[in-house]
Amino acid sequence: MEDQAQAGKRAAAKRAVDERIRDNQVVGIGSGTTIVSAVERLVERVRDEKLSVVCIPTSFQARQLILENKLPLGTLEQYPQLDVAIDGADEVDAHLNLIKGGGGCLTQEKIIASCAKEFYVIADDRKDTAKLGTYWKKGVPIEVVPMAYRPVQLKIQQQLGGKTELRMAHRKAGPIVTDNGNFIIDWMFDGTPDWVEADRKLHCIPGVLETGLFLNMAKAAYFGTSDGNVSVRIPEISPS
Amino acid sequence: MEDQAQAGKRAAAKRAVDERIRDNQVVGIGSGTTIVSAVERLVERVRDEKLSVVCIPTSFQARQLILENKLPLGTLEQYPQLDVAIDGADEVDAHLNLIKGGGGCLTQEKIIASCAKEFYVIADDRKDTAKLGTYWKKGVPIEVVPMAYRPVQLKIQQQLGGKTELRMAHRKAGPIVTDNGNFIIDWMFDGTPDWVEADRKLHCIPGVLETGLFLNMAKAAYFGTSDGNVSVRIPEISPS
Repeated sequence: MEDQAQAGKRAAAKRAVDERIRDNQVVGIGSGTTIVSAVERLVERVRDEKLSVVCIPTSFQARQLILENKLPLGTLEQYPQLDVAIDGADEVDAHLNLIKGGGGCLTQEKIIASCAKEFYVIADDRKDTAKLGTYWKKGVPIEVVPMAYRPVQLKIQQQLGGKTELRMAHRKAGPIVTDNGNFIIDWMFDGTPDWVEADRKLHCIPGVLETGLFLNMAKAAYFGTSDGNVSVRIPEISPS
Repeated sequence: MEDQAQAGKRAAAKRAVDERIRDNQVVGIGSGTTIVSAVERLVERVRDEKLSVVCIPTSFQARQLILENKLPLGTLEQYPQLDVAIDGADEVDAHLNLIKGGGGCLTQEKIIASCAKEFYVIADDRKDTAKLGTYWKKGVPIEVVPMAYRPVQLKIQQQLGGKTELRMAHRKAGPIVTDNGNFIIDWMFDGTPDWVEADRKLHCIPGVLETGLFLNMAKAAYFGTSDGNVSVRIPEISPS
């Protein structure tokens, strides 16, 4: 099952990199397993087509990928506006709203995506659903300042319902700590919230840095199947 | 002038602590110069009236004040709901909306204030104005993730107008770093924005952790004058 998913991710990554990255672009590099395939394909294109790109990472992992593959590394200070960003997702709904952050990276990913003229999602087709929460059952990841995790949990439950959990680490006692030094709360929502409203409420809870809801950001999603086919979907209403 | 302001701060701090802190309460302790007077008065009451309180700090400075004065220290994990919080402000408008964070502390202050059943502001009367920006000319402090400071500045200027500055440190090369490891951007706004709308927009810019706008939070403001008088003001519409 994981192997089949891997084939889908690879196919989606290849097609997106081939269609969306052009010469002389500043490119945001997402985080997670799918992105490894995207970087592999980008490296081939840089080698074969002498493509010139600058890569801006969305995490420590992305930065390492860029460095290990000897791609040119840039920062948001040098390039506050990116041409394109490509990233994975934990789930994608019919409107191309995403849940991200299952791997603990979401704040830097959202910053990068928000700075790109075009943002594309790549995923295997299991993650392509009508409604968020159909495939991804672990809730919406929310990055919080450590000292506030308890009151933030209480406020989410009071204001938005559902349940919350502080995400605990493996191979380290206590909670996971993000690349920004914060904690992650996973919000198991009830039913289908109004996502825009929920995201706004979450952002206004003091102590919340960022949410794993990426709403009206993706210009297209590339979904790969285990047999190597890729379907491309654009949002019903184009994001502004 | 500073001595006169100090007398006003002291008077306001004393009256607020006397009127608003009761036995067996969990008390949020703000940050800044005015709070030093509030802690001094609280120490007197604990000693003279055998008041029993637990103090939750809003910054490293507040924590040191609590420890140096041998007041009982607590955390938000132990007490996610506080009875009362007292803090200073850089400016207070006619609706008791505040600008805070001139001293670089705002996120933990807002977290604590948002967890308190009652939040009171203390200040000298120079800070009592009809409109934010009348007294405090340095703009609204906004705490941001370091890697995002450039695009956040650009987005603030695009979405909200005005000018922004990355706050630089004294006695350290480069920008100030907050108690949470982040940077501060000061937003010099134009005119009089719709503050609720502006605050919401700022929170939704990826990379923004918290703003120095404290809207509809204070239950009353205590303003002290240089001759030791204190006026108490409540908002025209009581905060929810």
